[in-house]
Amino acid sequence: MPSRARAVQFARFGEPTEVAEIVVEDVRDPGPGEVTIDIEAAAINPSHLLTLQGKYGIDFELPMVPGSEGAGTIAAIGPAVARYRLGDRVLVPAYAGSWRQRATVKAADILADFPRAADPVQCSMLLANPPTAYLMLTRYVDLKPGDWVIQNAANSAVGQYLIQLCRHYGWRTVNVVRRKGMEDFFARLGADAVVEDGPDLTDRVKTATGGAPVRLAIDAVAGAATARLAACVEKHGTVINYGMLSGEPCHMPPRETVFRNVSLRGFWLTMWLREYSTRHDREQVYALLRDLIVRGVLHADVEATYPISRAREALAHAARGGRAGKIVFAPQSEALP
Amino acid sequence: MPSRARAVQFARFGEPTEVAEIVVEDVRDPGPGEVTIDIEAAAINPSHLLTLQGKYGIDFELPMVPGSEGAGTIAAIGPAVARYRLGDRVLVPAYAGSWRQRATVKAADILADFPRAADPVQCSMLLANPPTAYLMLTRYVDLKPGDWVIQNAANSAVGQYLIQLCRHYGWRTVNVVRRKGMEDFFARLGADAVVEDGPDLTDRVKTATGGAPVRLAIDAVAGAATARLAACVEKHGTVINYGMLSGEPCHMPPRETVFRNVSLRGFWLTMWLREYSTRHDREQVYALLRDLIVRGVLHADVEATYPISRAREALAHAARGGRAGKIVFAPQSEALP
Repeated sequence: MPSRARAVQFARFGEPTEVAEIVVEDVRDPGPGEVTIDIEAAAINPSHLLTLQGKYGIDFELPMVPGSEGAGTIAAIGPAVARYRLGDRVLVPAYAGSWRQRATVKAADILADFPRAADPVQCSMLLANPPTAYLMLTRYVDLKPGDWVIQNAANSAVGQYLIQLCRHYGWRTVNVVRRKGMEDFFARLGADAVVEDGPDLTDRVKTATGGAPVRLAIDAVAGAATARLAACVEKHGTVINYGMLSGEPCHMPPRETVFRNVSLRGFWLTMWLREYSTRHDREQVYALLRDLIVRGVLHADVEATYPISRAREALAHAARGGRAGKIVFAPQSEALP
Repeated sequence: MPSRARAVQFARFGEPTEVAEIVVEDVRDPGPGEVTIDIEAAAINPSHLLTLQGKYGIDFELPMVPGSEGAGTIAAIGPAVARYRLGDRVLVPAYAGSWRQRATVKAADILADFPRAADPVQCSMLLANPPTAYLMLTRYVDLKPGDWVIQNAANSAVGQYLIQLCRHYGWRTVNVVRRKGMEDFFARLGADAVVEDGPDLTDRVKTATGGAPVRLAIDAVAGAATARLAACVEKHGTVINYGMLSGEPCHMPPRETVFRNVSLRGFWLTMWLREYSTRHDREQVYALLRDLIVRGVLHADVEATYPISRAREALAHAARGGRAGKIVFAPQSEALP
């Protein structure tokens, strides 16, 4: 099998379009318990861009090949791997660095496999955003059919999966946006209400829900936006913060924490995966969400795909606002070097 | 029995010393299931002063007689009350308005009674601050002997009871203060460590605990102080906010919520009493804390006591900084009018 493949490598932090290098690297043959994956699809997420700019909350060693999620097919199988056949489509483990054509990984670290007929681009997005949305919806508040959930940054990847999951399970969503104009888009996703953010958010939300209590708030913005969401949830309600688009600390007025017993929790999938999920939890969550992707219940719009060798173009495209979907690497769209 | 007694009444919000009036009111004879209490002691708390200034989080109807806690003796017993004898010392229900000489209440609303030999001033403080400290220490994190707890505003009434409770149960406290100088005072209370607040709080706390994890943070200040406490607790740790001395919303950076899974909860005793405790919970908590007060495990320093007719002096004294203890009304120190 070929032992060399292309990858997008970063030797220093900075503007991703400036510091990205296309390298050709050796791919090690799979050892005992390992498989080599031909990566078919690997998305560029906002968190990747923050990481490459050195703005994410955790440290990474350089040089690195980014990419925390991807899907691909088994290209080689090492000794003592009974579970996979050549050509099987699988989810690439998070540590592999998926912005490359090929990766050798431990077979036991593969969290999901997919039917051969599934769309590898949709499959590649299983790892991070669907479980983030799913776990925030299911692990903090016991939502009943018809219950309302509020979220800001509703247009984000997590936000869109969250709307699709709520529609599927019969929970209703109030989606907070910075400005009007995407009502059709949100209606197609299955949103129940879309409201503009602002100081009178609680009134708009009350109008949207007909006064029904909002049981759970999902916050990707932090800063004063957290306080505005907190004011919208019911007494004893929960706010889950998972992002910091504002760059500010979450604001939680004692009016909410003390007088209304509203809690603020945080969620980070990496920590769930590493520190407080069991193997059974992970298998159950990924099997369920894999099925929802394969059935088309969960779907992300894609604006463009790029081969690895056009990485700088891809990164520039991903950094632009006003896109209609994700930017995704399609590493098998060009031959191995 | 006399049907008239003195009370401190407020007909409008404003500076307490200016708007307080001493009135003589009719005291109704106890009806079925009621008792009349001769109030022996009723503290002036910071929350009372905020309430009277119109700065507390909830609305009150005027005119009102403040005072959410007090102790007194049974002066008259209505029909169908089997539990009490004349002279029994009891806790005054929160709604009674304890800044008065006498109050008629439902016997079923009395949360605790005390031995006749107990100090009524210490007993009068059972209602609010000891259960606030106790419930924050026991209802969120399962503390083991030797575990560390951090709190700010350690010099407050709740803060002092919290230190005493921790010493009693074998939990260790790091007490955050605005400036040095009260080490002896805190040592006498049973504090394990006292540190000054500031941007390098985490380092000072690490030194104080020898690097041991801090499992729970108790925040009475809000604003950036919440973020500083949050940075001191262990991963998956909990911050409980119960006050807003800074007047700011709690700040919780996503660095803590998202990347370290630190939660922010709120606590308000009134809500616990009214909305999410059972009768059994309340009886258990008040019986336990009553015993700790009677045994002297829980104790609050008192700087001065005043009769009702000197209420303006008492309120001015309570509003002054640098006190060495509470200001308490002693309504039986003068005869009924």
